[in-house]
Parts: sequence; structure tokens; C-alpha cells
Amino acid sequence: MTVSRVLNYPQLVAEPTRERVRASIRKLDYMVNDLARPLGKSRRPVIGILALNVATTPYSVSITFAIEKLAREHGWRTYLVNTFSNSPPANVLDSLLSLRPEGVVFATMGHRLVNVPERLIRAGVVLANCQTSQKGLACYVPDDEQGQYDGVHKLLEQGYRRPLCIHLPEGSPAASLRRKGIQRAFKEFNIAEKDQAHAVLSPKPESIQPVQFRDEPDFLQTAFILDDALRRSPRPDCVICANDRVALVAYQYLLSRGLRIPQDVGVLGFDDMVGVGGLFLPPLSTIRLPHEEIGEAAASHIILGRKKPGIYRVKCPFVSRASF
Amino acid sequence: MTVSRVLNYPQLVAEPTRERVRASIRKLDYMVNDLARPLGKSRRPVIGILALNVATTPYSVSITFAIEKLAREHGWRTYLVNTFSNSPPANVLDSLLSLRPEGVVFATMGHRLVNVPERLIRAGVVLANCQTSQKGLACYVPDDEQGQYDGVHKLLEQGYRRPLCIHLPEGSPAASLRRKGIQRAFKEFNIAEKDQAHAVLSPKPESIQPVQFRDEPDFLQTAFILDDALRRSPRPDCVICANDRVALVAYQYLLSRGLRIPQDVGVLGFDDMVGVGGLFLPPLSTIRLPHEEIGEAAASHIILGRKKPGIYRVKCPFVSRASF
Repeated sequence: MTVSRVLNYPQLVAEPTRERVRASIRKLDYMVNDLARPLGKSRRPVIGILALNVATTPYSVSITFAIEKLAREHGWRTYLVNTFSNSPPANVLDSLLSLRPEGVVFATMGHRLVNVPERLIRAGVVLANCQTSQKGLACYVPDDEQGQYDGVHKLLEQGYRRPLCIHLPEGSPAASLRRKGIQRAFKEFNIAEKDQAHAVLSPKPESIQPVQFRDEPDFLQTAFILDDALRRSPRPDCVICANDRVALVAYQYLLSRGLRIPQDVGVLGFDDMVGVGGLFLPPLSTIRLPHEEIGEAAASHIILGRKKPGIYRVKCPFVSRASF
Repeated sequence: MTVSRVLNYPQLVAEPTRERVRASIRKLDYMVNDLARPLGKSRRPVIGILALNVATTPYSVSITFAIEKLAREHGWRTYLVNTFSNSPPANVLDSLLSLRPEGVVFATMGHRLVNVPERLIRAGVVLANCQTSQKGLACYVPDDEQGQYDGVHKLLEQGYRRPLCIHLPEGSPAASLRRKGIQRAFKEFNIAEKDQAHAVLSPKPESIQPVQFRDEPDFLQTAFILDDALRRSPRPDCVICANDRVALVAYQYLLSRGLRIPQDVGVLGFDDMVGVGGLFLPPLSTIRLPHEEIGEAAASHIILGRKKPGIYRVKCPFVSRASF
């Protein structure tokens, strides 16, 4: 009772007692279990983060990084729960919702379509890096179309005219938006169809994929695609890569064939992949996925109590280095 | 009261009432806030995960993946809180400990030495991928020495005799253990000192590092190191790389110089880096950091109530591919 009074109504407790209690609290590392407080009483607010594969794969971790950073700056707490299936099982939702979060960010590894469980919608959810056809939700996603358009535009400005495009497997918003961006830039520079080459990566059979990498194509196909394309005459003078991992395989293949980057072949990446983007020789010009900005926007949505639903597209900046 | 009775003593409530209450519960998505229950009463137990940079960098995320997986299989819950500073700030510890976890896994991005806050020790902490000089704690770490020894042994078995070693910056357990492993294998194969070449990566100035990559060396130095080493006569016939990222830069440099892997130069990696290990042309022979096994062991330690402190070294398996 005295401890409770010291914490909640210190003015009712005599100074010496107050000090004694406080010293004990420090010594025992006592903490108010403030999740146990009934709703409505003051407690530090919570953002729940439900991460679909995000924290187990290297590509979108900056999303959760940014959410946690912003939340802490505002005195909010965050708890992250990972899920590895497209429809999170009930016990995962139980875990997250038992913390009574003020809002939940549902974040995915790649820009994709999701179906949001009703329970998350009732808890107040905002989507990061994914979108849905369900009404009334706010979704923060990368502007793949703008990013890809800008990158290809920069490439063509350098004079390259016979592009080989290596596309992501069809079916994701990222894949179709990037195709649109490429076509818009090609049109602007009058790249004739006969001067364009296109190849599409096919997904790996699911059986041989570790669970973290489900839905990933086999990037080594890039070598076969290039081998084939370089036999043609005239050969492509640049490669527009589905992402930096494709570019990584393309680099090794081109360099082993004695082709110089960017003099003989220009290369454009996509993602500015964390931890790898800086390891290319010569450094890779690419398009950065704005994962930090997306995480920050999603967290702000909850912290600032925004209500407006819709799809918010976040700019993908071009990163100019030395591969064209 | 009736709701509480239905949940806790259903046999005291008449069947029709019970059903009505249960239907309402389903409809309202009511959940027992079981973190709010006093300690001692039954609730689903919790593992707290305090991740130092783990979830914001691509290299050790499998640790948290494995903890969450095992915990769920045992009906435990997990909550992950990231921290970005070597001494986690008080509010981060508050967040984690207010959940009253049965135990906490403190996991770090790379195998390193840490100083564990007293509050975590009192809460029951186990270390994953890091170790400490503080007494009484259990630490699960990769057996870098064994892994590096095995890898170099396999390389020398193939007949390579003039190794160039590119080492991690000194100061971490990983760096010194790997050096020991290399020297043990060299001794066994009588590799004379004059036939060995050694270079040490230096850390990047902290000012130009994003917070997620603090403590990382500049891997592009690899190109300068190789450039220098290849001028010597006789030149090295294989490269023992500090990790897969060094190997990635080495590949590009060697291939651009017209050298073939493995015919002209053999390459050995370390890490089997998630998402990148499979993108080498030819595929990289490397040593896998046992991140999943470490996460699983740390989680088991808590779930099974193990008490024995000590440093547990987890085997690093050699991954045989095609780079030597």
C-alpha cells in the first residue's frame, strides 16, 4: 500500500518514508507492470509490430528499425512479433493483442498484397510495405513505378540504347509497377521493341526453399539469361536488373567474360540492399527502397492518430554510383 | 463477474449462460490480458528477446527466427525489442522487463564481448552469439576456431599452398578464434611463413557508418589488398576471406583480372550469409555460422529451465560448393 501510494500519490507520504521506499524500489528494480493497468489509466502507449518475414530476412529490416526509433523518440514502446505465414496463426495475434497496443503495424518483407485478419483491423492496423484490397486501411508502400522510371531514365540519358531487362516473377505489385516504369522511360526515349530484350525470373520450387525465402526466385538464372543475350548481335549494351541480387550475379558473369562495367555494359540495380549495396566493384547505381521512410510513416500514422485510409506511395530515390 | 467465472470456473455456470458468454467473447474478440495476471497464476510464459542490432542487420536474424519458432512449438510467447547501443538504455529494459518474462535472450549481431546490465541478469538472461567476462551466465556462441580450422583444412587438402588471409579487424572473439583456426591448419600442412600472406581489414571511420553498421570494416579494401598481393611472385593461389562479403569483393576483383575460380585461385568464405551465400558464380565454399542452432539452444536453455553457466560453443559446419 505504501509503495503504491509513493508511486501514485507521493504527496500523501511523508518525505523520509518516500525516500526509503524509493531507495528500495531502485534496489529491487521494481517496475510498475504498466501493461497490467486497466485501459484508460495512464501508461506508456504501445505500438505492436507484426512482421511477416521481415525480421528474418535481410531486405526490409530497416522498416522495423525506423518504427522502433520513432516510437522511442515519442516515449512509446514497441513489441515485435514475427510471423512466417501469410495468415498469422491465432496464437501470434493473441500474443500481440494481449499487449493492448494503441495500434499495430503490419509489415512485410517485399511489396506485396496481403489479407489483413479482422482482429488486426479492429485493433487499429496500418500496413507497411504491403497493400490490400480491403477497404478503409492506410498502406505505406514504395513507389516502385516512379523509382524504376527514374533509374531507367538516368541510364538512357547516358546513351545506352539496347537494354536487357531481367524482371521479377509476375504477380506482385512490385513486379507490375516496375514494368510500367520501364515502359514509360523506354517510350520517352523511343527505344524500339526490336532493341529491347526481356527475360522473367521464375520462382524456385517451394520444396527447396527455406521458409524465410519462400517466394524468392532463383537469382542464378541471371547467368543463363545473360549467356543467351550476349550471343545475340547486336548484343545488349546495358542490363536493367530486377534487384541488386540479380545485379550481383550479372556482375560476376559479365566480369568473367571480360566485359567491363560500365564501358562495355551498364548495369542498373534496384533495392540498395542493406549490407550488400556497398560491395559492388565498380559501385552499383541503383534505386533505394525507402524502408526507413515507410516505417517512419507507418509509426507516425499511429502516434499522431491519423485516420485517413488510402495507399500512400513513398518515393524511391535513385542512388548514383559508377555502374553506368 | 459472470464472464470471469465462465473463463476460470466454467463448471459453476449454467450451460446456456456459458454459451451466451462464450459467443459474446468470440464476437468482441475479448482476450484475457494475461500479462496482467499476478505472477504465480497460470499464464502463457514469455521469452523476452533483446536484440543488439540483430534485427536491423542481415546477418544474425536467423537467431531470433529460431527462438520464436521453438518458443511457439512449446506454447511460449516471445517479444522482441531491438536496441542499437551496446548498453541498452533504461527505457528499453523497462519495456522488456515489464512483460515479466520467464527469461531473456540477449542476442548480438556478431560474435562479440558484451557487458550485461544487472537488471537483465536478475531477470534470468542467456546470451546468444556473444559472451561476457561476468560470472554465472550461459553463453551460446559459434565455434569460430573449429569452423575456420575445418575450412582451411579442406582448402589445403585440395593442394593450395600459398594462401592469402584477409582477416577481420582485431579485437573481437571471432577475429582471434579464426586466426587460431587458420594457424592450426597451416601448421598441420607445414605452410611456411614465407608462403603465407596476411592482411587485416581496418574499421571504417565511425562517422560515415549508418548506426546499423557500426563496427563494420570497409570490405572494399579487399580490392586493394588483392591488387597488392597479385603483384608478388609467386602470387597467392588461394584467398581465405574474413567473411562472405570479403569473398564477394574478391570474386569481382579476381574475375575482372581474368583469373578463374577455382582453377587459378581458390576462395574460402565464412558466414554463409543469409540471402547472399547462394549468389556466387561459381558457388562459394564457406563455413556456416550456426545462427539457428544458437537461437534454438538459447531458447531451450530458458524453456527447459537449464541452470548451468558457461560458454557453449556451437559447431560451424563447412559448406562445400565450388570455389576450391
